[in-house]
Amino acid sequence: MDLLSIPTPALVLDRQKLRSNLSRMQQHAAKLGVRLRPHLKTAKSAEVARLATAGTFGGIAVSTIAEAEYFLSAGFSDILYAVGIVPSKADRLLDLQRGGAQISITLDCVEVAEGLEQRLTAIDPGGQKPFDVLIEIDADGHRNGVTADGGALLAIAAALRASRRLRLIGLMSHAGESYRLRSPHDIADLAERERAVVTLASARLRTQGYDCPVISVGSTPTATYARDLTGVTELRVGVYMFGDLFQAGLGCCSIEDLAVSVLATVIHHKPDLNRMLVDAGALALSKDRGTATQDVDFKYGLVADICGHPSAGVERRLVDDVNQEHGLIATAIGPADFKRYPIDSRIRVLPNHACMTAAAHERYFVTDGDTTVVDVWERCHGW
Amino acid sequence: MDLLSIPTPALVLDRQKLRSNLSRMQQHAAKLGVRLRPHLKTAKSAEVARLATAGTFGGIAVSTIAEAEYFLSAGFSDILYAVGIVPSKADRLLDLQRGGAQISITLDCVEVAEGLEQRLTAIDPGGQKPFDVLIEIDADGHRNGVTADGGALLAIAAALRASRRLRLIGLMSHAGESYRLRSPHDIADLAERERAVVTLASARLRTQGYDCPVISVGSTPTATYARDLTGVTELRVGVYMFGDLFQAGLGCCSIEDLAVSVLATVIHHKPDLNRMLVDAGALALSKDRGTATQDVDFKYGLVADICGHPSAGVERRLVDDVNQEHGLIATAIGPADFKRYPIDSRIRVLPNHACMTAAAHERYFVTDGDTTVVDVWERCHGW
Repeated sequence: MDLLSIPTPALVLDRQKLRSNLSRMQQHAAKLGVRLRPHLKTAKSAEVARLATAGTFGGIAVSTIAEAEYFLSAGFSDILYAVGIVPSKADRLLDLQRGGAQISITLDCVEVAEGLEQRLTAIDPGGQKPFDVLIEIDADGHRNGVTADGGALLAIAAALRASRRLRLIGLMSHAGESYRLRSPHDIADLAERERAVVTLASARLRTQGYDCPVISVGSTPTATYARDLTGVTELRVGVYMFGDLFQAGLGCCSIEDLAVSVLATVIHHKPDLNRMLVDAGALALSKDRGTATQDVDFKYGLVADICGHPSAGVERRLVDDVNQEHGLIATAIGPADFKRYPIDSRIRVLPNHACMTAAAHERYFVTDGDTTVVDVWERCHGW
Repeated sequence: MDLLSIPTPALVLDRQKLRSNLSRMQQHAAKLGVRLRPHLKTAKSAEVARLATAGTFGGIAVSTIAEAEYFLSAGFSDILYAVGIVPSKADRLLDLQRGGAQISITLDCVEVAEGLEQRLTAIDPGGQKPFDVLIEIDADGHRNGVTADGGALLAIAAALRASRRLRLIGLMSHAGESYRLRSPHDIADLAERERAVVTLASARLRTQGYDCPVISVGSTPTATYARDLTGVTELRVGVYMFGDLFQAGLGCCSIEDLAVSVLATVIHHKPDLNRMLVDAGALALSKDRGTATQDVDFKYGLVADICGHPSAGVERRLVDDVNQEHGLIATAIGPADFKRYPIDSRIRVLPNHACMTAAAHERYFVTDGDTTVVDVWERCHGW
């Protein structure tokens, strides 16, 4: 198979860039003295997970129960479901546990801890094996979590101590506000604040006699710029594997590091209006416009050649607009472009947001930097 | 199965609303004296296609070759691939034809007509059966098409006449600029302009001796508001089946007509910040923000109850922001909401753009207006 002949649009994964991105984060985690728990919400692929966990302790994080089921069936057993649990999901958690998974979950309120305990007792009265629980700590007001210094933290810990099926093993936080920051300095400061907050929370728990072996933090930006993670044990990161234009805008990778892109065919020229169309539109690229708020707005993606080399300088071209199955390339298109990109020629589009773009595709066409497809890796889907 | 117990997020299709939307457009097309060719790019489901074509001549339109393959395997043979063809897709067209499909295609330049003819001759030298071709006409500068009064139209017709495998059967246009209009009056005017343009083009072709039996126009807004379609033979429409908040904003349906929504579970309360989270985020809802440019901005979707009744008035709630697997409901959330929407309760979210939201899901959970799941309909995927 070759990128010149497979049906388009198609999702291309550059394995060399992937390996380089994985290696860089592994070395960074090792230097910071924390173990790395790759978050598979972006990649959703067993093959990527095997590369990402090679040389690590083997644990992974996921964002859907369907991912947990998929990765368990692919041989991964230490799985953190990193989205706040609710009691109604207990049935599928139990199935995962019965299937051999060492599932850990996260929550941030007493009501959920008690409701989940009741649900587990109701559906599995004879069950013994506990689920590991991380209490979520709010480091930045982003989304979930209890404050490190409030009463809820200890109340949840007490509810977990009283539980038969839930076992407190530590804390997690996700400094998602890092995505709104604009300088490495500010991101590094947020990473330090996150560290301070989880360290305070863990100290409070330990003072009250709670064992707290796992302290998990994560977001690709804060992980990239963290200066010191003393007191943290685990780093959860996902999009670092692929990178994207938004991450490049944050300085977390360079555009040359981007490992996923969408292969597209030029299907239309409109010389009178200086624009052309490709067959990758809103469904193949997503409507994520993350870079709209950054210094460089890449619209719906940056045009690259079939080997993935991004267009640059005066020849930089963007997908300026999308319809369902059409990408419109208009900015600065001129006569030279109609020769450079003839009808039926192929380009690649580097995405704003790898998680969103990859999710539209069922598989990766894997290359090692040229147009030969060296492998095809399936992705997991749904919920 | 019941909406109270299936895993969330999940795509719900209200069959009663679907039937009502289908019936309304069928009656409208009949009144206008044109045949209806449902566009399946939104629904991507054989079951929906069967309902949408009941009582029609049976032809459908699709926007990907994968859809054509899927619908052919489901028994649909008259299929218009309504995205501009390129020669490199000839192989799959030929497979479709060999599989029994009466495929029609669309193009708007001589280079493509000649390139496709060459490609078909090269890969199928003994082949006889022609592909039906519609020349695309530009009615509004939206995307593709030749002008009705220019030389390209006749040049393409001549290239098709010289072809052995391509047979000119007529014209198509897509007045996609209707999506940018704001009043029914303006949309009706655009529909009239589209009609005038294709009528002019068909008259020019007929004067030159070309048979031109099919004149196909379409877009849900122009179809909805067209006053007269004299000279047009076929109406292609897709999103009318489901409707969405954007179409409601255009006046093409009411919010009560919306047939698809995303079932979600409330997974988090944050009373101190007056907000809550559901487990339908960017992947389950899409990042389409179509209504951002309309009078009423519904952010990432309108909250409805589990039976699909939209929240309204002072109790209207929106999904204000999304992360990958989280929907954030913040606007006007207060103590009453935390009682109305307890942890583990379920809501439905009406989408900005049904095509984008549905594409994230593998199947429809079909209801007849209450919470009982009466059927599960698979969707086709990929390209």
